[in-house]
Amino acid sequence: MLIVQKYGGTSMGSVERIQNVARRVAKWHAAGHQVVVVPSAMSGETNRLLGLAKEISPQPDLRELDMLAATGEQASSALLAIALMRQGVAARSYAGWQVPVRTDSAYTKARILSIDDTRIRADLESGRVVIVTGFQGIDDEGHITTLGRGGSDTSAVAVAAAMGADECLIFTDVDGVYTTDPRVVPEARRMNVISFEEMLEMASLGSKVLQIRSVEFAGKYQVPLRVLSSLTDPLIPVDEEMHSGTLITFEEDQKMETAVVSGIAFSRDEAKVTLRNVPDTPGVAYSILGPVAAANIDVDMILQNISQQGMTDFSFTVNRNDFARTLELLKTQIGPAVGAGEVVSDDKVAKVSIVGIGMRSHVGVASLMFRTLAEEGINIQMISTSEIKTSVLINDKYMELAVRALHKAFELDQESVQAEA
Amino acid sequence: MLIVQKYGGTSMGSVERIQNVARRVAKWHAAGHQVVVVPSAMSGETNRLLGLAKEISPQPDLRELDMLAATGEQASSALLAIALMRQGVAARSYAGWQVPVRTDSAYTKARILSIDDTRIRADLESGRVVIVTGFQGIDDEGHITTLGRGGSDTSAVAVAAAMGADECLIFTDVDGVYTTDPRVVPEARRMNVISFEEMLEMASLGSKVLQIRSVEFAGKYQVPLRVLSSLTDPLIPVDEEMHSGTLITFEEDQKMETAVVSGIAFSRDEAKVTLRNVPDTPGVAYSILGPVAAANIDVDMILQNISQQGMTDFSFTVNRNDFARTLELLKTQIGPAVGAGEVVSDDKVAKVSIVGIGMRSHVGVASLMFRTLAEEGINIQMISTSEIKTSVLINDKYMELAVRALHKAFELDQESVQAEA
Repeated sequence: MLIVQKYGGTSMGSVERIQNVARRVAKWHAAGHQVVVVPSAMSGETNRLLGLAKEISPQPDLRELDMLAATGEQASSALLAIALMRQGVAARSYAGWQVPVRTDSAYTKARILSIDDTRIRADLESGRVVIVTGFQGIDDEGHITTLGRGGSDTSAVAVAAAMGADECLIFTDVDGVYTTDPRVVPEARRMNVISFEEMLEMASLGSKVLQIRSVEFAGKYQVPLRVLSSLTDPLIPVDEEMHSGTLITFEEDQKMETAVVSGIAFSRDEAKVTLRNVPDTPGVAYSILGPVAAANIDVDMILQNISQQGMTDFSFTVNRNDFARTLELLKTQIGPAVGAGEVVSDDKVAKVSIVGIGMRSHVGVASLMFRTLAEEGINIQMISTSEIKTSVLINDKYMELAVRALHKAFELDQESVQAEA
Repeated sequence: MLIVQKYGGTSMGSVERIQNVARRVAKWHAAGHQVVVVPSAMSGETNRLLGLAKEISPQPDLRELDMLAATGEQASSALLAIALMRQGVAARSYAGWQVPVRTDSAYTKARILSIDDTRIRADLESGRVVIVTGFQGIDDEGHITTLGRGGSDTSAVAVAAAMGADECLIFTDVDGVYTTDPRVVPEARRMNVISFEEMLEMASLGSKVLQIRSVEFAGKYQVPLRVLSSLTDPLIPVDEEMHSGTLITFEEDQKMETAVVSGIAFSRDEAKVTLRNVPDTPGVAYSILGPVAAANIDVDMILQNISQQGMTDFSFTVNRNDFARTLELLKTQIGPAVGAGEVVSDDKVAKVSIVGIGMRSHVGVASLMFRTLAEEGINIQMISTSEIKTSVLINDKYMELAVRALHKAFELDQESVQAEA
């Protein structure tokens, strides 16, 4: 089989850990698989480099930041190649530009356009393990680009997609995707299988296991992704490792019909703003949200109250980082422009979501959610729904309580409810 | 003018120092010059990277070592670009492969074949300072290569040669080339001008100011080189800086005829071996030195005694690092093969040389050297001469004494003896 393996910064964090990665890769190679490895920079290295840049300039040039940051993966990739050869495995490392991994020119957040696998394939054919630096590529002008934080996940998936790999293994410091954060709910269970759509919702809602773009990419190109731990014994049998962790699959039939809710996601990065007493005229939502979007602020949940005497209250949530800018915009521009009353705000809110592909065909899921929260005395401030997700905004002091109650109510701690591959 | 400036690892050793380099470069840019900067890695970084590789493998693969080591200059170059932009100077950094700097494929000690200056020139025309990573290039197969220790000097000279720069300034932690090492002779004087040939002899004999290959390169392409300090105030006037340090020139008329000896070089990296009682047949020198060369051991001084009764003693010197290998070779292979007697050796020797382009046309220079040493009671073990140099091998405990006595005898502490530009 052709296997792409991605190792995160923690897995590459020291000489000893790099040697362990090499042992693991060597084991797969010895079992007859063709292996392409995509490593991150050694943990701390990217921050060290960007820290130097920040010491020099508060707003470093983005092209030069990418030149700088890309060195981290180049170094770790070369070290891994050296470690593999030390263990008797032929190996060769390539920087993104050498493959090449072609991207657009959006420095620090570039998108992969294409990957030429000629060189990688020739090396694989000759028996080598090929190491491709994560996180980076080259644009049309020959400048180095990087894909942004977590970009190595995307690099790995893109390589797997370009090569039609049988599976892309994401080795990280957790052993899979859980029904919710085990630090909040000790009974949280690792899922053996999750669908791409569910993973997408889990990732975007704050389960930080995989970079969201990599999941989108995997879904688009139907690359089977597996998240698994690099902290286990590197010499456990390949057959066993091949079934560990969590498989993120695009094949729906791998999920049993009984799985209604797969996981609970939550996020504290929320803030709510409300414009009071807005004249309820056609186009008012656009008058309010247009300028917000123009200021490059992402709006998440939106609520427009039922109109009373031609007036309404209009609420929406933004990321807490954008809270101050949003408030300023509402008070100085948007509020006066639409003739609204006062602006009220709350940055002590959290979003809790239930996610499950089975929700599509099951009724009563949302109502169980609402009933559970009501029984705990938790007030729901806003609601948003999609086909496979229901989210509520609540006072953030109740967040953990809500997550635990919902985890129990949807019986996520019970193995039998969960689908198995 | 088009000026290439090279900054060593010490000059780039911290955020503050990089900011100082940026100030210096900005000053030259503001004075209307086109500036290409070639920085080394931050001091300690190359050793840190190679140390990681050595921890993983005692003999790391050379291609991967170059992948690894090349990251040091890429990072420092990007940081310098950021520092320049912070000071309002448009700048852009390029890795060797981006220029491209084409080399052969001799990893860790590659030689530059050609430099394409199209990209650099376009940036200069548009008013940018261009930064080119020192120490590295790309081979025909698209692999990263490095030029070996001190290779950034060579990179700078090669860029200057390719672009026909008006001058190549090598900024380092000393303020020029001295008549000898000031730590040994406090009266040593900085030279304002030295010829390439003299510099070549001084460099190869242990004056570690410039990498020897960079001097050869500068001589070959007639690039005016200036060695000067990066530790002075970065904002001293350009006109003043342009005349500081030591100019290494290919124009002989810049040297006054009176300069007979320019400097005293010395080296303790020597070891002497002697094959006793060698049958003095035609071709015996080749029988002895052929296998030594085949073992990749550089031989420096050679002495074959006058033959007595068809037998001779044959001595030569090698670098102290090759001493053990050479002895082994002589005892087990060469000695038996040529029918020699015992092998004797001495690794407590030093080489002292007087260097001066004026020696070509002056007689009596060597005899003043020998007389001076005799007066100090220093025995000369071997002698070698070239057009512009006379070297002697002596007991290494007399090395400093010899250097001081010669420095005085040739009046190198006297300004009037020394040529001026």
